[in-house]
Amino acid sequence: MSELGIVVTDIARVDAATVDGLAVHGVATVHEAMGRTGLAGPSIRPIQQGARVAGTAVTVLSWPGDNLMIHAAIEQCQAGDLLVVATTSPSADGAFGDLFATALKARGVRGLVTATGVRDTQDLRDMGFPVWSNGVHAQGTVKATAGSVNVPVVVDGMLVHPGDVVIADDDGVVCVPRREAASALAAVEARVTKEEADRAAYAGGGELSLDRKGLRALLSDLGVRYVTQAEHG
Amino acid sequence: MSELGIVVTDIARVDAATVDGLAVHGVATVHEAMGRTGLAGPSIRPIQQGARVAGTAVTVLSWPGDNLMIHAAIEQCQAGDLLVVATTSPSADGAFGDLFATALKARGVRGLVTATGVRDTQDLRDMGFPVWSNGVHAQGTVKATAGSVNVPVVVDGMLVHPGDVVIADDDGVVCVPRREAASALAAVEARVTKEEADRAAYAGGGELSLDRKGLRALLSDLGVRYVTQAEHG
Amino acid sequence: MSELGIVVTDIARVDAATVDGLAVHGVATVHEAMGRTGLAGPSIRPIQQGARVAGTAVTVLSWPGDNLMIHAAIEQCQAGDLLVVATTSPSADGAFGDLFATALKARGVRGLVTATGVRDTQDLRDMGFPVWSNGVHAQGTVKATAGSVNVPVVVDGMLVHPGDVVIADDDGVVCVPRREAASALAAVEARVTKEEADRAAYAGGGELSLDRKGLRALLSDLGVRYVTQAEHG
Amino acid sequence: MSELGIVVTDIARVDAATVDGLAVHGVATVHEAMGRTGLAGPSIRPIQQGARVAGTAVTVLSWPGDNLMIHAAIEQCQAGDLLVVATTSPSADGAFGDLFATALKARGVRGLVTATGVRDTQDLRDMGFPVWSNGVHAQGTVKATAGSVNVPVVVDGMLVHPGDVVIADDDGVVCVPRREAASALAAVEARVTKEEADRAAYAGGGELSLDRKGLRALLSDLGVRYVTQAEHG
Amino acid sequence: MSELGIVVTDIARVDAATVDGLAVHGVATVHEAMGRTGLAGPSIRPIQQGARVAGTAVTVLSWPGDNLMIHAAIEQCQAGDLLVVATTSPSADGAFGDLFATALKARGVRGLVTATGVRDTQDLRDMGFPVWSNGVHAQGTVKATAGSVNVPVVVDGMLVHPGDVVIADDDGVVCVPRREAASALAAVEARVTKEEADRAAYAGGGELSLDRKGLRALLSDLGVRYVTQAEHG
Amino acid sequence: MSELGIVVTDIARVDAATVDGLAVHGVATVHEAMGRTGLAGPSIRPIQQGARVAGTAVTVLSWPGDNLMIHAAIEQCQAGDLLVVATTSPSADGAFGDLFATALKARGVRGLVTATGVRDTQDLRDMGFPVWSNGVHAQGTVKATAGSVNVPVVVDGMLVHPGDVVIADDDGVVCVPRREAASALAAVEARVTKEEADRAAYAGGGELSLDRKGLRALLSDLGVRYVTQAEHG
Repeated sequence: MSELGIVVTDIARVDAATVDGLAVHGVATVHEAMGRTGLAGPSIRPIQQGARVAGTAVTVLSWPGDNLMIHAAIEQCQAGDLLVVATTSPSADGAFGDLFATALKARGVRGLVTATGVRDTQDLRDMGFPVWSNGVHAQGTVKATAGSVNVPVVVDGMLVHPGDVVIADDDGVVCVPRREAASALAAVEARVTKEEADRAAYAGGGELSLDRKGLRALLSDLGVRYVTQAEHG
Repeated sequence: MSELGIVVTDIARVDAATVDGLAVHGVATVHEAMGRTGLAGPSIRPIQQGARVAGTAVTVLSWPGDNLMIHAAIEQCQAGDLLVVATTSPSADGAFGDLFATALKARGVRGLVTATGVRDTQDLRDMGFPVWSNGVHAQGTVKATAGSVNVPVVVDGMLVHPGDVVIADDDGVVCVPRREAASALAAVEARVTKEEADRAAYAGGGELSLDRKGLRALLSDLGVRYVTQAEHG
Repeated sequence: MSELGIVVTDIARVDAATVDGLAVHGVATVHEAMGRTGLAGPSIRPIQQGARVAGTAVTVLSWPGDNLMIHAAIEQCQAGDLLVVATTSPSADGAFGDLFATALKARGVRGLVTATGVRDTQDLRDMGFPVWSNGVHAQGTVKATAGSVNVPVVVDGMLVHPGDVVIADDDGVVCVPRREAASALAAVEARVTKEEADRAAYAGGGELSLDRKGLRALLSDLGVRYVTQAEHG
Repeated sequence: MSELGIVVTDIARVDAATVDGLAVHGVATVHEAMGRTGLAGPSIRPIQQGARVAGTAVTVLSWPGDNLMIHAAIEQCQAGDLLVVATTSPSADGAFGDLFATALKARGVRGLVTATGVRDTQDLRDMGFPVWSNGVHAQGTVKATAGSVNVPVVVDGMLVHPGDVVIADDDGVVCVPRREAASALAAVEARVTKEEADRAAYAGGGELSLDRKGLRALLSDLGVRYVTQAEHG
Repeated sequence: MSELGIVVTDIARVDAATVDGLAVHGVATVHEAMGRTGLAGPSIRPIQQGARVAGTAVTVLSWPGDNLMIHAAIEQCQAGDLLVVATTSPSADGAFGDLFATALKARGVRGLVTATGVRDTQDLRDMGFPVWSNGVHAQGTVKATAGSVNVPVVVDGMLVHPGDVVIADDDGVVCVPRREAASALAAVEARVTKEEADRAAYAGGGELSLDRKGLRALLSDLGVRYVTQAEHG
Repeated sequence: MSELGIVVTDIARVDAATVDGLAVHGVATVHEAMGRTGLAGPSIRPIQQGARVAGTAVTVLSWPGDNLMIHAAIEQCQAGDLLVVATTSPSADGAFGDLFATALKARGVRGLVTATGVRDTQDLRDMGFPVWSNGVHAQGTVKATAGSVNVPVVVDGMLVHPGDVVIADDDGVVCVPRREAASALAAVEARVTKEEADRAAYAGGGELSLDRKGLRALLSDLGVRYVTQAEHG
């Protein structure tokens, strides 16, 4: 989607306090607080269970079957970043493995979100380097074709600009645009407060969401009828 | 597939003793004992490992991207039920999360089987509320369109009527029609006895299923020939 | 793809020392060391996490929905083997469960790789019998149609001849042809030594793969330009 | 889903006039007129372009890779029927070809809807025997395992009872339950009249559906704002 | 991905001469000339054969199962536009049919590219209104949830801003950003000239692309060896 | 699967008379006559309707996203060949277009079977150069990585050695191994004679396959019961 053959070297990033504030909350909550925007589709899944990270995006656009630009991207990464890899066309190859993770971890990079496959998955879990990918495949890649680093990329429908905040957990991956990060954090915190009140109301079993959210009138307006089995026939 | 805009309020349910009897056995065993009927297709998978539940079905037919009728269904649920959600067309959205699970658990509902996606999966696992879904997606849903509660639904080919027994474990999901539940339980118990004898025979390594099941004659009838590598060429 | 109706009884196998030598290393490493050949596609996934096995292949070609030839194959298995099952057309059925695993384990078979589904997955994990399959499905199979044992089979693009070494772990499955097994082991060990040096270089964070692998010149030859955000516009 | 090993020989069918009345209208129109129920999912596609048929369903439940019960079903077919084939688990095999079509056409059967693959597709098109299937595959099937004829079946979520009306065209396949066929026909004809008035209103370009359907108020209620590019920023 | 609840009313569009200039050439050629950027993935396919159109994009972001915003978008369309529809999550529903096409054709709109399904496909072909979609499904949609018109959307990885040129033919769909349209047209015309010379060279059979493109040296550099069958063994 | 970096220059081919004899018959018939072996899976589909070709295979093993080895393969092609392309991992890219087809047609090559995507599809149809592929995508490919020509390849499960006969039509693609080509042709011709007799018997409507193939006894042996609707309950 973006220009090929470019490495942008001085991207602006969201500040660490905002990133860390967003990292506390889940992907579903951030997505809701942002007006249900910015979410990657369901094809991008974690290779581990229970990890939750947020980081500033360093983006890679690679040729399928080729990880040359991931090599180039490492140099552009700094502590607090999260690497985001897209390909110019669909690819399941294992473009990323434990050697890349070793290098990234040494630089303080927090994880990987990739539209490709990955390999060395047991090693990655053992290292505690969290990864979200389109699957697992041992298939190796070459280093032969130009791509780009730090251009806008699309990962299963999620548009990421370099420096945006990317949050990932067991529910998937969401991107918060750089300029909206501070307001998003405020919206997330408001939502969490509201959800906690809902949770307490439902946990006791004393209140129904039909009542709490005033949905009975809507059901009636939509013509939903309550009938007995005998009436339904 | 079913009528939209209906909530049936007084469904008949299989008795608790039969449900609990079926819950002891696995999905594969129940499916076999029922003459290999009633099974959901392989797209419906657990979000946890090692859970096995059986419950009486409260069914939901929802519009894609809309969880209004799940709100309506909670009121129809009682202890021992299992919620079964279908949509009018394919949907991967996260129509179910931890707030619904909190409300259902408070009512004694045993779990969820849904043809949609789910979210808050780490919370659901932490709560011990077991879920089978078509995947995981943080995408939120609206409350805007009529559907039905307690009408027959189809979940990946599995037809479920309200009040049927639905059993789910790591192998998938199976439905036992209400009127066949008692006879199914008897058939399951007979099958388990037979399988235990088979297991003992094979565990020692002394007997082959070819002999135990009398399959050598069948192979011969089908024209299967035993040859050496040299003869095979 | 292969002839139907044949059981080959006396296949040649790779020697145990070579098999065990390969079992130490991961699928990705073996695949790389073999010049990136022999790998199964990403549809074949483990039902457990953290298992790694290598074994000599006993192959099965079955009709979809039919496990008759797995019964026949058990008799052809010996300690150190790994069962490899293909079907004549795509099939998700649960053609394999805990009774087969019981019989195979009693004979010293190390695991299963199958292009079909499997069932009794919790039992299989509890038994410590590792399985790679195209999914999980409780759907039962019949014993009615002829297939073959110990003919060449293709599992998601991976060609396996009986007696080849098949290695499987969390990253997938790879096949080393019988005649190449010894040289493959030597190549794997050389590669491991090189990877360990790379890992040490990257772990300290002092060296970039761009430099270590001499990729800066390649990037330049390919016309990749380093620009600032201001220059990129 | 249904019992295996049964052939029901004397099914009741919708009368020919109602079937032929429904055949005039498209699948989308019938689906709408029925309250958006009864539709098969999008995996069932025509192998030809421009065909539209309606017929009374003779149903088949087959084992995957096995067409024995299609042989048994032919005898149960009569003029005006449409054959509907489901399998007990997913199957892409070419379970149907030109010899079956020859036999069915000789009996006045109007077409085939199958959850399997088909083959001899050029011959089927040349014969003018319309087919809707889950794909095309030359893979042959055996005749070895019991199934059923004229039991309820599910084809990509569409529940069909024998004797129901099944309508199929380029848009897919819909089932009208036997007892609702007459009322469905009336509803379809009312809808067609309304759609013709809409079409005339839009064709001239003089009227917007926003106005004709009164949607401007809804957009406002939902908070949709009209802004210029400058205001949107 | 984009803000919900917005209709932008005064988008800038590429001029007609440039759009019509691009319409002459195929999607593959435009994609190549633009440095292989801007292409939609292979899930978006035409419902007709042999159509090629280019138009200025009016974009729609809809809720799955809901076509309310398509109603709103019609009013924003003018002659020479092409409607581009995305959904907030994957949807196969038939969100578009012949009534919409009637209204759009009356306004001079050149076609539709949609990430959803469509219906009334035979009517659409008969009308000569070309459509590219993710499939065909008769499933109807509601008008209940807010979305947006003329915000940036992503269709199978292709990012489209309102007013961009979208070109579609039998090979797929490509987007040329508004500001790059003029330079893209120049690049396309240069490429076409070069391809015509290549075609003439190959058509006679007298020249190989190995020679014409100087690839023999590359093969040699990559270590590709020419061997006889006997040498290959 | 096979060695990378090899071009085999002097492959043996099946004689033209046998190839042309097989070309007369359909893929389904050849597949049946060969004992139901050699068929490609259903992912490989024609881009045109009504074409049927047979040719001797020149095989290509390419890196995903790279068509360098297709350039190399053209030189190895001669009249009567059919080009067969596999990739080392799944790829949907448009690795083949009208320039390649121009060059191949000039050499008398009969068509293309590829595990990749293709582009310029309207041109390919206009030229009368038949193509079977895994889909259509305009995405371009590079020329950067070594692969092989005339090594064994697997295309959706179909194993092809160079010089084998590959037959393709609307039903898919089948491979007849070189050494079995003559006997396969004889088997095909016998089968055609039998099918013609079957077709005549069924066309009149006077005979059922249940009787002609003696299937009533089998149904009875399998326990299939004929019941009335009343008996079935």
